[in-house]
Amino acid sequence: MIRYVGRLQTSKKMKADTHHKTDLSPWRVRNKSKVLLDEIDTFLPEKFFGKSDDLNERVEKLSEKLNKFQNLLYASKNKAVLLVLQGMDTSGKDGVIRHVFSHVSPLATHAIAFGAPTELEKSHDFLWRVHSKVPALGNLTIFNRSHYEDVLVTRVRGWINKPVWEKRYEHINNFESLLHDGGITILKCFLHISKQEQKKRLQARIDDSQKNWKLQEADFVDRKLWPDYQAAYQDAISATSTEQAPWYIVPADSKPERDFFIASLLVQTLEDMELALPEPTFDVKRVRL
Amino acid sequence: MIRYVGRLQTSKKMKADTHHKTDLSPWRVRNKSKVLLDEIDTFLPEKFFGKSDDLNERVEKLSEKLNKFQNLLYASKNKAVLLVLQGMDTSGKDGVIRHVFSHVSPLATHAIAFGAPTELEKSHDFLWRVHSKVPALGNLTIFNRSHYEDVLVTRVRGWINKPVWEKRYEHINNFESLLHDGGITILKCFLHISKQEQKKRLQARIDDSQKNWKLQEADFVDRKLWPDYQAAYQDAISATSTEQAPWYIVPADSKPERDFFIASLLVQTLEDMELALPEPTFDVKRVRL
Repeated sequence: MIRYVGRLQTSKKMKADTHHKTDLSPWRVRNKSKVLLDEIDTFLPEKFFGKSDDLNERVEKLSEKLNKFQNLLYASKNKAVLLVLQGMDTSGKDGVIRHVFSHVSPLATHAIAFGAPTELEKSHDFLWRVHSKVPALGNLTIFNRSHYEDVLVTRVRGWINKPVWEKRYEHINNFESLLHDGGITILKCFLHISKQEQKKRLQARIDDSQKNWKLQEADFVDRKLWPDYQAAYQDAISATSTEQAPWYIVPADSKPERDFFIASLLVQTLEDMELALPEPTFDVKRVRL
Repeated sequence: MIRYVGRLQTSKKMKADTHHKTDLSPWRVRNKSKVLLDEIDTFLPEKFFGKSDDLNERVEKLSEKLNKFQNLLYASKNKAVLLVLQGMDTSGKDGVIRHVFSHVSPLATHAIAFGAPTELEKSHDFLWRVHSKVPALGNLTIFNRSHYEDVLVTRVRGWINKPVWEKRYEHINNFESLLHDGGITILKCFLHISKQEQKKRLQARIDDSQKNWKLQEADFVDRKLWPDYQAAYQDAISATSTEQAPWYIVPADSKPERDFFIASLLVQTLEDMELALPEPTFDVKRVRL
């Protein structure tokens, strides 16, 4: 088992202005190690931030930075990034996409939401609809839910049994390895909220008529199955966190902390990819207009 | 023939702070009327703006407004918007997507770039690959080039003859009528630049090594075919500008003017759609957590 919080290390190169070198490795699930969600805090530790930090402002700055890197990724056209977002209802998947990408142009950034599969999708293997949506080289794609639903809701609602979901873990690892070999950097984030926080957020959606439309009856069924979902999540995360496609447990009871975490993770990842503008395909200097 | 410029009308409801009620109808091609691109200015008339206006700032504000409307569109899930961008190389299709959507989250906004068709795409009718990318209800999709390439480059390079492209105009009108009936509001923008302005922009891409990667040898072939392209564009635009899917000739020699025009067009269009939050699907107030 991993104790994430408490192992916090601060990189020597961390810059005070952006903090984009913040060490996020304590929340990275090491290669197929066992995760116990109950023992992981849903907030970041206090010492993670300075006192007077305005996190929302820092997220905005990181979003602008992300936009610059994304432009470079688009130009280079030889690598791609896939961000997978998973979490219980109200954990903030939509919110992350709104805030972290607030300054990123949609030129080569795509968010794909996976809902209940259609009849056509159900007539194929569970990775079929997902494969068709993975980023082309030069693109950054966000999966708002993903192929992981096929080892989560399907398991909790009793539609598949253990041999099936265990076999699916294998298929997922093989599939993600294929994507990795094709030039895609994969990041998977579990938005980790407490049951109390979910109650607060659902209540807010009930009380505020402007938020009513976000509610579905299934949300309340799923809430009653909370322990089963946590078990399904921690098994799936443990079985599929690899070097090539790691999971991060993102403390998500605080929205600004959650956004800051994911914005930092993306900026650092893109930075480490050492993207460069491609060479022109012909002798540009010889052109006469 | 339509003389766009000179017919400028200013809406009585226009607000000084955002100018989003600017009357853009002089640049809208009326139902299948004949367009003569040579006679349309590539700049907006001076009286269109106040003197001290900072257009880039206004585009930013419009982009924020667009984001709010887009959130409503996403929530309502019963309408969609398709923006088609066409224009010669360097006319600013990428630039529009970058600037106009700078504050729009990618949650339900997708930009799709259509390049030369693949072997698989070529083995289908010319609308096949396009149909699969049209926006789902709740989404805003931008086509960066589109099915119109199949009556433009294909015609200019001599790959199809007149009966084929004229038949394709019909197919396009029928197709866009189908999309309209399915709840999609279609806007088509031709980014109208002068040949001189293209020369300046290509030269800038030659001179600035940071921009070299944007150049392709085909750009210079296409430039030599300028008059043929203009002829192909004006025929296609004339034949396919309908009430349901109108073309706009967007003066695009000035980047801020171009962005302001399209941002205004989108904001006004979304405003006129009278979007509203949907009703919840069950009795929310009876839920006890």
